[in-house]
Amino acid sequence: MNVHSPARSTVEDDIALFRRVRAAMPELAKGLSVEDLAAQSMPDCSPGKWHLAHTSWFFEAMILSREPDYRPVDPRWQTLFNSYYEALGERVERPERGLMTRPSLDEVTAYRREIDRRMIRWLGQGEMDARSRYLFTLGLNHDQQHQELFLMDMLHLMSRSPLEPAAYDREPRSGPVEPARGGETVFAGGLVEIGHDAAGFAFDNEGPRHKVWLEPYALADDLVSNGDWMRFMADGGYTRPELWLSDGWATVKTEGWTAPLYWSRDGESWRVMTLAGPRAVDADAPVRHVSLYEADAYARWAGKRLPTEAEWEHAARTRPDVLSNLFGEVWQWTASAYAPYPGFAPTEGTASEYNGKFMANQVVLRGGAFATSEGHARATYRNFYYPHQRWAFTGLRLAWDQPSESARVTDDESAGFRDDLIAGLSRSPKRTSPKWFYDAAGSDLFEAITRLPEYYPTRQEAALLRAVAPDWAARFGPGATMVEFGSGASEKTRIVLDAAPDLAGYVPIDI
Amino acid sequence: MNVHSPARSTVEDDIALFRRVRAAMPELAKGLSVEDLAAQSMPDCSPGKWHLAHTSWFFEAMILSREPDYRPVDPRWQTLFNSYYEALGERVERPERGLMTRPSLDEVTAYRREIDRRMIRWLGQGEMDARSRYLFTLGLNHDQQHQELFLMDMLHLMSRSPLEPAAYDREPRSGPVEPARGGETVFAGGLVEIGHDAAGFAFDNEGPRHKVWLEPYALADDLVSNGDWMRFMADGGYTRPELWLSDGWATVKTEGWTAPLYWSRDGESWRVMTLAGPRAVDADAPVRHVSLYEADAYARWAGKRLPTEAEWEHAARTRPDVLSNLFGEVWQWTASAYAPYPGFAPTEGTASEYNGKFMANQVVLRGGAFATSEGHARATYRNFYYPHQRWAFTGLRLAWDQPSESARVTDDESAGFRDDLIAGLSRSPKRTSPKWFYDAAGSDLFEAITRLPEYYPTRQEAALLRAVAPDWAARFGPGATMVEFGSGASEKTRIVLDAAPDLAGYVPIDI
Amino acid sequence: MNVHSPARSTVEDDIALFRRVRAAMPELAKGLSVEDLAAQSMPDCSPGKWHLAHTSWFFEAMILSREPDYRPVDPRWQTLFNSYYEALGERVERPERGLMTRPSLDEVTAYRREIDRRMIRWLGQGEMDARSRYLFTLGLNHDQQHQELFLMDMLHLMSRSPLEPAAYDREPRSGPVEPARGGETVFAGGLVEIGHDAAGFAFDNEGPRHKVWLEPYALADDLVSNGDWMRFMADGGYTRPELWLSDGWATVKTEGWTAPLYWSRDGESWRVMTLAGPRAVDADAPVRHVSLYEADAYARWAGKRLPTEAEWEHAARTRPDVLSNLFGEVWQWTASAYAPYPGFAPTEGTASEYNGKFMANQVVLRGGAFATSEGHARATYRNFYYPHQRWAFTGLRLAWDQPSESARVTDDESAGFRDDLIAGLSRSPKRTSPKWFYDAAGSDLFEAITRLPEYYPTRQEAALLRAVAPDWAARFGPGATMVEFGSGASEKTRIVLDAAPDLAGYVPIDI
Amino acid sequence: MNVHSPARSTVEDDIALFRRVRAAMPELAKGLSVEDLAAQSMPDCSPGKWHLAHTSWFFEAMILSREPDYRPVDPRWQTLFNSYYEALGERVERPERGLMTRPSLDEVTAYRREIDRRMIRWLGQGEMDARSRYLFTLGLNHDQQHQELFLMDMLHLMSRSPLEPAAYDREPRSGPVEPARGGETVFAGGLVEIGHDAAGFAFDNEGPRHKVWLEPYALADDLVSNGDWMRFMADGGYTRPELWLSDGWATVKTEGWTAPLYWSRDGESWRVMTLAGPRAVDADAPVRHVSLYEADAYARWAGKRLPTEAEWEHAARTRPDVLSNLFGEVWQWTASAYAPYPGFAPTEGTASEYNGKFMANQVVLRGGAFATSEGHARATYRNFYYPHQRWAFTGLRLAWDQPSESARVTDDESAGFRDDLIAGLSRSPKRTSPKWFYDAAGSDLFEAITRLPEYYPTRQEAALLRAVAPDWAARFGPGATMVEFGSGASEKTRIVLDAAPDLAGYVPIDI
Repeated sequence: MNVHSPARSTVEDDIALFRRVRAAMPELAKGLSVEDLAAQSMPDCSPGKWHLAHTSWFFEAMILSREPDYRPVDPRWQTLFNSYYEALGERVERPERGLMTRPSLDEVTAYRREIDRRMIRWLGQGEMDARSRYLFTLGLNHDQQHQELFLMDMLHLMSRSPLEPAAYDREPRSGPVEPARGGETVFAGGLVEIGHDAAGFAFDNEGPRHKVWLEPYALADDLVSNGDWMRFMADGGYTRPELWLSDGWATVKTEGWTAPLYWSRDGESWRVMTLAGPRAVDADAPVRHVSLYEADAYARWAGKRLPTEAEWEHAARTRPDVLSNLFGEVWQWTASAYAPYPGFAPTEGTASEYNGKFMANQVVLRGGAFATSEGHARATYRNFYYPHQRWAFTGLRLAWDQPSESARVTDDESAGFRDDLIAGLSRSPKRTSPKWFYDAAGSDLFEAITRLPEYYPTRQEAALLRAVAPDWAARFGPGATMVEFGSGASEKTRIVLDAAPDLAGYVPIDI
Repeated sequence: MNVHSPARSTVEDDIALFRRVRAAMPELAKGLSVEDLAAQSMPDCSPGKWHLAHTSWFFEAMILSREPDYRPVDPRWQTLFNSYYEALGERVERPERGLMTRPSLDEVTAYRREIDRRMIRWLGQGEMDARSRYLFTLGLNHDQQHQELFLMDMLHLMSRSPLEPAAYDREPRSGPVEPARGGETVFAGGLVEIGHDAAGFAFDNEGPRHKVWLEPYALADDLVSNGDWMRFMADGGYTRPELWLSDGWATVKTEGWTAPLYWSRDGESWRVMTLAGPRAVDADAPVRHVSLYEADAYARWAGKRLPTEAEWEHAARTRPDVLSNLFGEVWQWTASAYAPYPGFAPTEGTASEYNGKFMANQVVLRGGAFATSEGHARATYRNFYYPHQRWAFTGLRLAWDQPSESARVTDDESAGFRDDLIAGLSRSPKRTSPKWFYDAAGSDLFEAITRLPEYYPTRQEAALLRAVAPDWAARFGPGATMVEFGSGASEKTRIVLDAAPDLAGYVPIDI
Repeated sequence: MNVHSPARSTVEDDIALFRRVRAAMPELAKGLSVEDLAAQSMPDCSPGKWHLAHTSWFFEAMILSREPDYRPVDPRWQTLFNSYYEALGERVERPERGLMTRPSLDEVTAYRREIDRRMIRWLGQGEMDARSRYLFTLGLNHDQQHQELFLMDMLHLMSRSPLEPAAYDREPRSGPVEPARGGETVFAGGLVEIGHDAAGFAFDNEGPRHKVWLEPYALADDLVSNGDWMRFMADGGYTRPELWLSDGWATVKTEGWTAPLYWSRDGESWRVMTLAGPRAVDADAPVRHVSLYEADAYARWAGKRLPTEAEWEHAARTRPDVLSNLFGEVWQWTASAYAPYPGFAPTEGTASEYNGKFMANQVVLRGGAFATSEGHARATYRNFYYPHQRWAFTGLRLAWDQPSESARVTDDESAGFRDDLIAGLSRSPKRTSPKWFYDAAGSDLFEAITRLPEYYPTRQEAALLRAVAPDWAARFGPGATMVEFGSGASEKTRIVLDAAPDLAGYVPIDI
Repeated sequence: MNVHSPARSTVEDDIALFRRVRAAMPELAKGLSVEDLAAQSMPDCSPGKWHLAHTSWFFEAMILSREPDYRPVDPRWQTLFNSYYEALGERVERPERGLMTRPSLDEVTAYRREIDRRMIRWLGQGEMDARSRYLFTLGLNHDQQHQELFLMDMLHLMSRSPLEPAAYDREPRSGPVEPARGGETVFAGGLVEIGHDAAGFAFDNEGPRHKVWLEPYALADDLVSNGDWMRFMADGGYTRPELWLSDGWATVKTEGWTAPLYWSRDGESWRVMTLAGPRAVDADAPVRHVSLYEADAYARWAGKRLPTEAEWEHAARTRPDVLSNLFGEVWQWTASAYAPYPGFAPTEGTASEYNGKFMANQVVLRGGAFATSEGHARATYRNFYYPHQRWAFTGLRLAWDQPSESARVTDDESAGFRDDLIAGLSRSPKRTSPKWFYDAAGSDLFEAITRLPEYYPTRQEAALLRAVAPDWAARFGPGATMVEFGSGASEKTRIVLDAAPDLAGYVPIDI
């Protein structure tokens, strides 16, 4: 569900949107027991009850409590359900969230209802300023992020039970996995822009939009599948140090990894724990629950690499049609450390701790998972985890360097370039012929420039040509062959050709 | 409640007893929420739900499953609720008990009911053999042990909540703390016996009964109080390494201990978390939740020591009247490592892992706590914890060495003894006068021996005396003074005195 | 000392160079005791003896052992002095290097001499192929890296001694610290290139050279000083979570950091342990031994940020003259995670493990330290450490965003831009005037392009202008004012002006 | 070498003794390198250099510095070479002893020489008071303890080197291992005394001498051998939890133990690292380097147990002739926790921290090792280590319960006892015949008592018998058979028999 408020949203729209987003997590919790919602299976996880409370707390702490004379629903919840906001005071340490048996699930549900009631009243006042609208939308997006965390944490919890219970009858997802397409797509790169342009909602870490230079590259159209991964394992993937980053190899040995998280041997084949209980591993499905270390090792094994986040985003913007499961299946590890974009400024106020302070030691993932709320992700979305973490719905898509045009020149051309360069650089002052500056992409670009209204030389030349062409044609005489050096897109040539119907031949030459 | 079956118990008695014991833990759980009963606040603790299930499992694993063709209530519970019995197969690691959100509390309650039903049917068959009766009684005692663990664990859990909830309206206990008496009691020691004599139920670790030699010692009639402890703290108790065992001091520094567990500063005074919520520390009440290290440091600070378990047991058997809060307030740390008694043999069968395998690194506590089921403890009972553990209801009673009789002799006597010894040991063969062998305790013992029917010399001498006394008295003449060396208890003297009413005086001399 | 072999090096040059580089570490070890050279003060450090041996092992493993039938000096040293090369077999785990009391320092010295003898013989054969020359130069650079590690490790070791011994009489450094200059320098950025161009030696991680887009930025001309740092500390720098990355703040609390490594309180002032023993902290000197976390927190406190490595390198290439202590004082933390450059390929062969496998979780530092061998560092050099590490000679130089030209436009212009944009984007198809595409940098670039010989329109226009200008001027009449829209660099205008000396005024307009 | 000063020692004796003891450690250090003496291979170990310095420090801190106006050799050594004496101020933490590269070995050797010089001057003053003499002897014994620690630590260090160096050409030991004898010895037990009687030197923890009651027990004459241990291993000793204490089994799993420390597989057989380098395991030699946990598991596997320290000491005092390798091969684990003896008081003054504060969590070992200085150990000596430690020269000797005399009665007697008891305990008041109180040992004791001069009834009865016997004999008539119930030692009977030469038979009956 897309949480962006419509451009001209009415109060009714806002309230309807709020209700829709807030209904999702209780829906996920519906079939689970009080105990299922209370347990914390590892420090990285939180209890379901905590997610239900914390997402309510967020609206209270960020929006409601800004009102003068605001009286909190219960001042004690301020501490209990604060996640990591230092500016908002004391809080329960993350690994101890499972110890909060009080308030009970019933009390949390009541808290949730009361917050919803207050928020709807607040929305009913109409006329939000920009900051309020941002925080409102942030709260909805925050809720959706925790809906996914809720599922991640529930799967981890169920996986730790000897009973391997199914949290749900079927995996909660909005659509089927897309079938693999089998191809690859090349991107020319160049000076592209990535990042959010501030039109519509985005987290602060997605902006500002900024330029990045990309070398030509290619992406696999499909995600790496379980079947691919089994081949990696069969080829000793988890036992060959040369495939691994040094920190990754240390982790493999310390943790005893031999397969993705949740996989276990089942005779000759493999089974995997899912939100719907244990299942046979489906060779065709995208692999899940691999760490950055594993994704990186797999890529090295495959003779490829992970894409940078700029490559991923540029591809996702320009050719979303060719990439299967771009969103909606697994978050895809990139090669990019999670860092601020040039000019990054955190959201002002208490929400400033939302993203920025985590910009160390983590790695960006792009795309979105089957468990991500519909409409929540976007091409500029930057998810992030530590390189050893595996309980998120993580997978990978391979990338590799695409030899640039200049790398494809024939040996002769290459030799000419070398000779020219040596000669030019031996002169004083050194020089190089600008002809070596232009390649296919540059030519395309230049052509486009020449068609801008502001680029008058094209039009002037054309006008001049049209004036003189008949005169030229008259001088050619019949049977002549026109040889043109530096023909470019040959547009001006047409003017001459149109004026010289008797030419015997035309030979355009360009590099 | 005393779980020992009556000497001639009927089936009805057994069933009634079983019902009474089994009703206790559900009663403790009654006011607590599903979440309270599901959480595990540290690896040493277990969830309440687990205690409810495990105590049922114990009856099934130890008794019911011995029946041929027994079909378990649910085979999966065999693994889930096994605590530490290696012989009974796989089990959930202790620190992960809080992750078992399934089965739910409702399912555990149903399991409990079914086990109770089966046990009552089994009891209804009548005629248990000795082994079955032992296991039945063991199961009841095991249930009671977990009732106390239930309370320990619940207090720990509540103490970790920022809300400091009261688990109960009032502290669950059967009687008030006994007021302090203020005295001390001396015990002569000697060759005493400790350990259970196998009459009635005891855990295997309480036997066999065996001889122990005790030097004279004294015990404080009262437990160390919170007021005492605050004086220890005020005197730098937690900051002076010379008071501490080396391992204890390391623990103080690592853990940052500055007070007993659950204490916190409240301005100038102290508050303590209890099962009934936070309370001001009561200076008169016995101190609780101190480790062996702290108890030992306190004793050293007080110029005293902890009693050995043999001293404690001997005192508890011989002078239970003078010692306040001997049972029923706190378990009292002893100086004794938890080790097998001479001739110890674990219970045969799967119950063999009950106690014996823990006989390393732990220390014996004696007595019983306010949270111990009535009738559960006894003078021979050996509780045990690691020296750093504090979450049990632990306190202490001081002991010290009592100078022996020989140490109280005057300097003259001491000199005589020395002279006599030097002279005797200078002879060949060496000799020592037997008169140095007898002290007060020995004299008492000898008197008792002489009153046995088998000790005929007393009676013979008395008969002879009675025969000759009149004749002797006749020879004394009037106004004589009778001086008797080695008068002992002077019983034979009375015969002579009775026969000599005219004596002017009687001077008994003894050492 | 610069270890790059001269372009046309003779055998004698190579041998002389080898001798010079290899003489350095024994020189550093000269005044230290056998024990000083044997101890390992933490897992990150290595014993001095190990450095002496490992740098010799490197030549043997990478160069000498490639010879057919090579017989190692001692096959056991293969294992003992391998650092982290998985492909070269078993090795002693890093934290256990201090346990290698054998071979003794004398034996290591003999090993070193023998390797030097063999290397000189190998060099004497003359005619190295490119790969051999690379490995030879790599070995020399590797040796120099360990010369610096030697000093880092020695300082750490001395700092752990209660005696605080001076490892050296004076700090081993080649020149004095440069005095601070007090300014800042602005860089326009744009599409720049960074990375090594493969001319001369570089580590594999420095290449390939590649394009990076930089927004305008500024750098402080000076390093952050101890005095600056003391102001940060006085302002609560180590106690304010809002200044820190989340992982950094957790480290501050866990490690109890309150100052840079090696600092200790000395009454009201601070002292610092150095290679020359304890010293008062010099407020003017650049701060050393701070982690990335501290550097980042300092920058946030100062309202600035750390430079990216591309910014640093671009600045260092283009304006080395204005930046004090660019090299030679401390390694300067950047904001860039240590990651492969686009197209990175590790050195082939066993040296492939040299750099690439460490490209996770570490952060790039640029510059060089006082302890870095002269000539070893260069503008493209990428040093790297984990964000919590402090024992290297690390410091920082601040950076900040430079508002771009377009950001300096007046409010009116800004309003015009907004209006234009809104209007254009409301049309279908949407459009934007290309005039908004050009800013100062773009204009400069375009001017430069128009001066290329290949850009004939400029020349053609000029020629045409020169032809028609006299005619135009004639038509102006006297006292006319020429108003020119879109004057650009006004070069063509001059032609007209030259032809029209009677103009009363000239008003060029451009944006 | 026995360090006890002769009863009437002269100054010359003391000085000679001092020189002898002090010469030992430098002798052990002689063949080792500076590095060997500087490294610390684990926190439990100390560098050899540290042992050399600390044992000198001990004399300075405990003896020399008691002199008024004493000027320490170097005040800094006070901190550096203090081991664990809190009262003597700051010290270097144990795990950091290997970081003290300064002072150098040469400086330590000089320190050692200076302390020796000062001590000899001090000894030359003659006339020590008792306290000084105790501290002097303590210092010598302390030196010897560290001589053994020196060897333990050196072996551990060498074992961590991939080179497996031999610290010595041959194992430093004073005599050969004694061959196994193959038997077992029974001890009647009873009320025995253990502990040091304060005649001659002992550590404070060996006293006071005190009574202990022992049940009958048996000891193996021999130590458990490597061959025995290999059978234990072959029988799954390290993989069967039922053989292990709970803490022991946890350690086996955590540490991955599969054999004693220093053992490694060598094809089908085993090799072991020794002070003389790696050797094949000698099946006949006593096993070494096993922890208490392993010793305990072995004993359980063998159907036996470890002796208590009282059993060991009583056996060692009363039957040292039958027990092989009682001293001089390995320290033998006992079943006794290291605890204060009744009435234990630490040595007064700074030496009070020597032993007492370690009386928690450790276990007593008795005997002595091949590496123990000759004459250093004695029957009362209490060595102690944590139950998981294995780097000391530790082994074991098995013990088991010996059925008491009463346990040997025939089944008939047993039945009679049972019947009598049931009958007696059914009466009110309950009674038991005293005849069941006496067993063989008791009878012997009673006989001995009756022979004391103070026990007049024997003499009186004998005198009476002698008076009446002729009269009785006259009444027997010829051919009579005298049947005597309760004959005891039959001494009084002889009086009657002597007086009745005509008796046809005599039938003594006793139980």
